[in-house]
Amino acid sequence: MNHKKLKIAILGGTGNLGEGMILRLALQNIALEGIKNEVIIGSRSKESAEESAKQVLINLENLGFDTSKITITGNTNFEAAREAELIILSIRFDYVLSLLDEIRDELENKILITPVVPMVKEGSLFIYKAPSEGSAALLIREKVLPSTKVVAAYHNIPAAKLKDITKCKDVYDTIICSDDIEAKKFVMELTRNMGCLKPLDGGPLKQANTVESLTPLLINLAKLNGLKDLGMNFN
Amino acid sequence: MNHKKLKIAILGGTGNLGEGMILRLALQNIALEGIKNEVIIGSRSKESAEESAKQVLINLENLGFDTSKITITGNTNFEAAREAELIILSIRFDYVLSLLDEIRDELENKILITPVVPMVKEGSLFIYKAPSEGSAALLIREKVLPSTKVVAAYHNIPAAKLKDITKCKDVYDTIICSDDIEAKKFVMELTRNMGCLKPLDGGPLKQANTVESLTPLLINLAKLNGLKDLGMNFN
Repeated sequence: MNHKKLKIAILGGTGNLGEGMILRLALQNIALEGIKNEVIIGSRSKESAEESAKQVLINLENLGFDTSKITITGNTNFEAAREAELIILSIRFDYVLSLLDEIRDELENKILITPVVPMVKEGSLFIYKAPSEGSAALLIREKVLPSTKVVAAYHNIPAAKLKDITKCKDVYDTIICSDDIEAKKFVMELTRNMGCLKPLDGGPLKQANTVESLTPLLINLAKLNGLKDLGMNFN
Repeated sequence: MNHKKLKIAILGGTGNLGEGMILRLALQNIALEGIKNEVIIGSRSKESAEESAKQVLINLENLGFDTSKITITGNTNFEAAREAELIILSIRFDYVLSLLDEIRDELENKILITPVVPMVKEGSLFIYKAPSEGSAALLIREKVLPSTKVVAAYHNIPAAKLKDITKCKDVYDTIICSDDIEAKKFVMELTRNMGCLKPLDGGPLKQANTVESLTPLLINLAKLNGLKDLGMNFN
C-alpha cells in the first residue's frame, strides 16, 4: 500500500465521526507534501453519499480552502469498499454484521478500521455490551476473510471536536490495536497526519475491548459532571 | 462523619499507591485550614505498619515539613479498620476476600474505598479479569455489611507521581463510583483536597468495571509506547 496515494472509504461517512475523518483525511492533500488521498464516502444510498461529498466540498470552500487538490466522492457502501484500499467502518454496531455480509469479498487483503462500539443505554447512563467474541473488533475479525487486516481505532474521539478543523487545537490520544503489525503502523502514521489526534499503540486486537468500553465511560462522565464532547489524554 | 477531623485507615498502606495516599492525606493538616486527618497505616504485621509510619514521618521531616500537626500511626489491618471512620483498601485483588472476612464487622456504617483492580498478565501485557459479580467493587459490596458504603476510586493513579509530593504538578483525573450519593460526595471532596488529583463522578458502583479495566490499559500503553507512570485526563 502506498502511503502517498491512498483510496480511503468511510462507510457510514454521513455520520458524526465520519465527517471529521473525511475532512481531516481530505485536507492532508493540502497540508502535507506529496500526499494524495482519495476519500470515498459510503452510504446505503448512493445519492445521499454524493450529496454529503458535495456538502463537505462546499464547506471546505466556505472555509477558504483551495479544493482543487481535494478528492471527495460518494457511493454505495459496496462500491466504496470495492474501490478503496483502506476502509473505515464508521457505523453502528447493529449494522455491522449485515454490512460485512455485503462487502466481505471486497475487503480481501485490505485494511479495515473499526471504531465500532457495542453499547446500550441503561437508565440515564450507557454500559458497554460486548458480543460473546469479547469485543466488536474480535467479532469483526471473525466475520471477514483471513487476509483482511482488522485495525481497531478512533473509538474515543470527541466527534464534534474532530470535525471542527478550525478549533481542534488540542490533541486527543487515540488507541490503535491490531494483530497485523504493519497495518497498525500504517494506521498510526495516517492518524498522526490528521492533526487533532495522537496515535498510541494499544497492542493486539484482543486488547480492543477496554478501548471500546471507554466510549460509554466518556459519555457518562460528560453527563454526570456537566462536561461536553470529552476526549482523553494519557500522560 | 466530620470532614474536618477524620480517622482514615489505609490497609496495605505499605504498598506503592498507599504511600502517596498517606502523604497527601496527612499533609492536608498543614495545607488546609482546620483539617485534622489521623492517618493509620494498616498491614498484616503491626511492626511493619509502625515502621512505615515512622519512615513516612522522617521523609516528611527531610522534605522540610513541620510534622507536629501530622498524625500517622501504624497497626494491624484489623485494628486500623476498627479505629478508622474511612477505610481505603489498598491491597491486591487476591487478598480482598480473606481481609474482608477478618474486618467485616469493623466496617459497619463506615465508608470503604476500593481501588482494587483484578487483572492478570498474559504474555507481556495485562488483561482485566473481573470476578463473576462484574467488578472487584461489586464483589466487595456483596461481601460487606449492608451499612458499609462502598466507594470505588483511585484505580488509575500513577502511584510514583502521587507519592512524589514535590513533583506532581499535573492533575490526574480520578473517577469515583458509588451507590451512596453522600459517601461519593464526601470522597470527591477528600480527593479534591489531596492535590494532584481531580475527582470525577463516575456514577453508580455498577460503572466501576470500566474504571477498573483502565489500569491494565494504562500499564500496557506505557509498555507499548515507551512511556512511564501514565495517568489520565478527560477533556
